[in-house]
Amino acid sequence: MRFMANTSATLEHLIDQFAKLPGIGRKTAYRLAYHVMQTPADQARSLSQAIVAVKEKILFCSQCFNVTDDDPCAICNAADRDTTIVCVVEEPHDVLAFERTGSYRGLYHVIGGVFSPLDGIGPEELKISELVSRIKNDGITEVIIATNPTSEGETTAHYLAKVLKPLGVSVTRIARGLPMGGDVEYADSNTVIRALEGRTEF
Amino acid sequence: MRFMANTSATLEHLIDQFAKLPGIGRKTAYRLAYHVMQTPADQARSLSQAIVAVKEKILFCSQCFNVTDDDPCAICNAADRDTTIVCVVEEPHDVLAFERTGSYRGLYHVIGGVFSPLDGIGPEELKISELVSRIKNDGITEVIIATNPTSEGETTAHYLAKVLKPLGVSVTRIARGLPMGGDVEYADSNTVIRALEGRTEF
Repeated sequence: MRFMANTSATLEHLIDQFAKLPGIGRKTAYRLAYHVMQTPADQARSLSQAIVAVKEKILFCSQCFNVTDDDPCAICNAADRDTTIVCVVEEPHDVLAFERTGSYRGLYHVIGGVFSPLDGIGPEELKISELVSRIKNDGITEVIIATNPTSEGETTAHYLAKVLKPLGVSVTRIARGLPMGGDVEYADSNTVIRALEGRTEF
Repeated sequence: MRFMANTSATLEHLIDQFAKLPGIGRKTAYRLAYHVMQTPADQARSLSQAIVAVKEKILFCSQCFNVTDDDPCAICNAADRDTTIVCVVEEPHDVLAFERTGSYRGLYHVIGGVFSPLDGIGPEELKISELVSRIKNDGITEVIIATNPTSEGETTAHYLAKVLKPLGVSVTRIARGLPMGGDVEYADSNTVIRALEGRTEF
């Protein structure tokens, strides 16, 4: 505990709480706490209640493991989705990235991370056996692996392909290459290599 | 409202709430909300309660207008402070900066900002009349003006000097010059000018 001067212990406590959030240092925590202190009471109450609600109300969908308020989630429950395709992503926010495009109409499966031996995260810690049983039981014909193009994401993708292919489904990986609007000159070498390897004919 | 995909409305609501805080964009808000969702329930509850407590418990000291849990604040109430000197600062965090040094034993007066015509902040919006009445009634002999060395802070300082000097107290301004550990080569011109103007004899 750093030296604390005679100011409000209540304010100091809120600063401590904010400083526990990721990427929030003490100066930012102070700025946030000070803002909350000056904000109208109903707005502060909204923030306070939203924090508790997130712990109390949010579930993970028992089918796709996306965050949801109802189980199964709205995507798994929708009548107009193509239930033969599953897109495998790392985290719930990845689902959002695909949904934003409006061009994917299949289902999802959130495995909840990637392999990370240093953090003790292997196949058992991810929702992989759940994915396997969905493929076996739910009439899925194609699995699109959309883990991030990082080394951990690629490793996880390769493992998934090895496990899923024997199940008789088509297993694909999202394309990696130059981002749209990007510039060859400024692209990193790994991206350029991937862009060359993944070239397609006109 | 931006396009929202089929994820948890509860999570989305917390993201909205975090995004209202200063300097928190939607991506950071998502990261914070996601963290809170995964944090143990008691820790989320602590944050939630600390936010409400700040609105419910914090007062402004009726003498110095610093934030406090009790009125008058611990500094105004302390038996061992020199009650003849008052240091005038802009905001409560400035009090902290002086207290951290451990070398100032007088009182404070938080005026709550600086003149800012564009924001409609003039003498009436700051705790200046309250400062004048403290000087008139509380046996104060020296006022140290410690507003920030910005153009607004300097303007406010000059105004304060003009108003307070006729009351028969000594009015001083904190020194401005090169910061300790600083470097003449990299100092901005205004700081160098001040350092020259404010030179003292050995």
